Amino acid sequence: MKVGFIGLGIMGSGMAGNILKAGFPLTVYNRTRGKAEPFEKLGARVVNTPEEVARQSDVVLSIVTDAPDVEQILYGEHGIVKAEKKGLIFVDMSTNSPDFALETYSQLKERGIRFLDAPVTGGDKGAKEGTLTIMVGGDEDVFKQVEPVFKAMGKNVIYVGSAGKGQALKLCNQVVIALDMVAVVEALQLSRSMGIEDEKLFSMLSSGAGNSFTVQYYMPKIMKGDLEPGFKSWHLKKDLKYVDDVASKRSIPMPATSLTLQLYSALVANGLGEKGTQSLIKLYDKLVGK
Amino acid sequence: MKVGFIGLGIMGSGMAGNILKAGFPLTVYNRTRGKAEPFEKLGARVVNTPEEVARQSDVVLSIVTDAPDVEQILYGEHGIVKAEKKGLIFVDMSTNSPDFALETYSQLKERGIRFLDAPVTGGDKGAKEGTLTIMVGGDEDVFKQVEPVFKAMGKNVIYVGSAGKGQALKLCNQVVIALDMVAVVEALQLSRSMGIEDEKLFSMLSSGAGNSFTVQYYMPKIMKGDLEPGFKSWHLKKDLKYVDDVASKRSIPMPATSLTLQLYSALVANGLGEKGTQSLIKLYDKLVGK
Repeated sequence: MKVGFIGLGIMGSGMAGNILKAGFPLTVYNRTRGKAEPFEKLGARVVNTPEEVARQSDVVLSIVTDAPDVEQILYGEHGIVKAEKKGLIFVDMSTNSPDFALETYSQLKERGIRFLDAPVTGGDKGAKEGTLTIMVGGDEDVFKQVEPVFKAMGKNVIYVGSAGKGQALKLCNQVVIALDMVAVVEALQLSRSMGIEDEKLFSMLSSGAGNSFTVQYYMPKIMKGDLEPGFKSWHLKKDLKYVDDVASKRSIPMPATSLTLQLYSALVANGLGEKGTQSLIKLYDKLVGK
Repeated sequence: MKVGFIGLGIMGSGMAGNILKAGFPLTVYNRTRGKAEPFEKLGARVVNTPEEVARQSDVVLSIVTDAPDVEQILYGEHGIVKAEKKGLIFVDMSTNSPDFALETYSQLKERGIRFLDAPVTGGDKGAKEGTLTIMVGGDEDVFKQVEPVFKAMGKNVIYVGSAGKGQALKLCNQVVIALDMVAVVEALQLSRSMGIEDEKLFSMLSSGAGNSFTVQYYMPKIMKGDLEPGFKSWHLKKDLKYVDDVASKRSIPMPATSLTLQLYSALVANGLGEKGTQSLIKLYDKLVGK
């Protein structure tokens, strides 16, 4: 199976690397060509348009920021649909709204292209190490075809159901990671205000009912003042907005998630959108005039 | 060191059992005497008042619900202070406000009684297995004397600092466990509304950045409809109110914790105070008319 990969950012470069390691013939494209060139040395073909990726591939995976980027890849001047390749499989591994996934599925079906939504979780570390969790929506027969490629990138590949369901499950993940971050940040603000050393808070949370991936992975970064992304604040804000839209459409009240969207909006407004999600601590510092 | 123990509820019975196992001579008292009697067979002395516990002991530990219970134990008709035992150490292992701990420390000091605040985390499971985390505030020399008894009950014993600091650190824990629960509950509501099986949400959260003690321990209970406490909703509501008071006093905004206090207030108002904290899912069900 010839694989194409579009979007070689923090996540995509690790994922494409693992596809190569697993022995799939790979064609890559990135808007900024410089990021694609290292893959040439590793044996990938580097091309100049999504259209060329489609011509060289049986399945094209993309991981970009947002729905407009996906639309550009598909329908832009040298977009994938220009290749007019019946039977091509296109997989969007970006986090997008379930409604967008459903719409894309239908639009591509009309052109003879099969679509899967397959967002991931596990961060840059999981992308590099091939330990991502991948949540897939779309037709099951198409999923089965692409499954070996997913397994090259992830240790937990979940077929969730029909088109849009991969995105739907991913949004549930974003709810949890966002609120787990708020939990750590509010606890830190409280403990610092009472003169408790961060290390004691960390020791307690690590050893008891407060333990979480967020405590283990992000809290030490906050303690060191390291705000570099893993996962960028404005990306989380975008995802929480999708949650808000989806939940509101179904009249599902999600008061804490909604509040968290407001907090991340404020964080982006304060110029911290490009920093990691753990930079939420800076918003709380601002709230107390630090 | 002769140990006294007051309060043989879900937590206390496990903890007192581990003190006995470690070989300390033990005297116990419980308001409902029936809960104390099993300890007689295990070699403990069962008495009828806190005053008698004090007479028999070098250190008295208590774990009860709230500040008024602690005041009753200390200053009630047959309370501990009636024993007039200079040099006695009294340890409150209940979760209470840091201000209450500080006040108790001062009041007991005047009577020649040394005080430690030493709340715990780790749940009924940790109490039974002797794997609690114990956070201690008070004078360090007193902490050193009681440390062997703490080690019989907990695997992580943290001396946090002066009187009240044990409670202060415990409140930070409650912030995290409360918000981690809200995270799981809102994610479940969203995923269910989109027709995703609970097992798929659990698989994703378990294997990625959304993992937490709450996911591992409480989410399976929610999935089975098991609302029995571990930790009762109205106890968490009480603790979140302490957080609210402490934070407000110091002008530390904690918007998400404050919202969570409102949610647990609503849960108690709906008659679910005696159920476990995971019963929050029922409030969300009510919000959507289920």
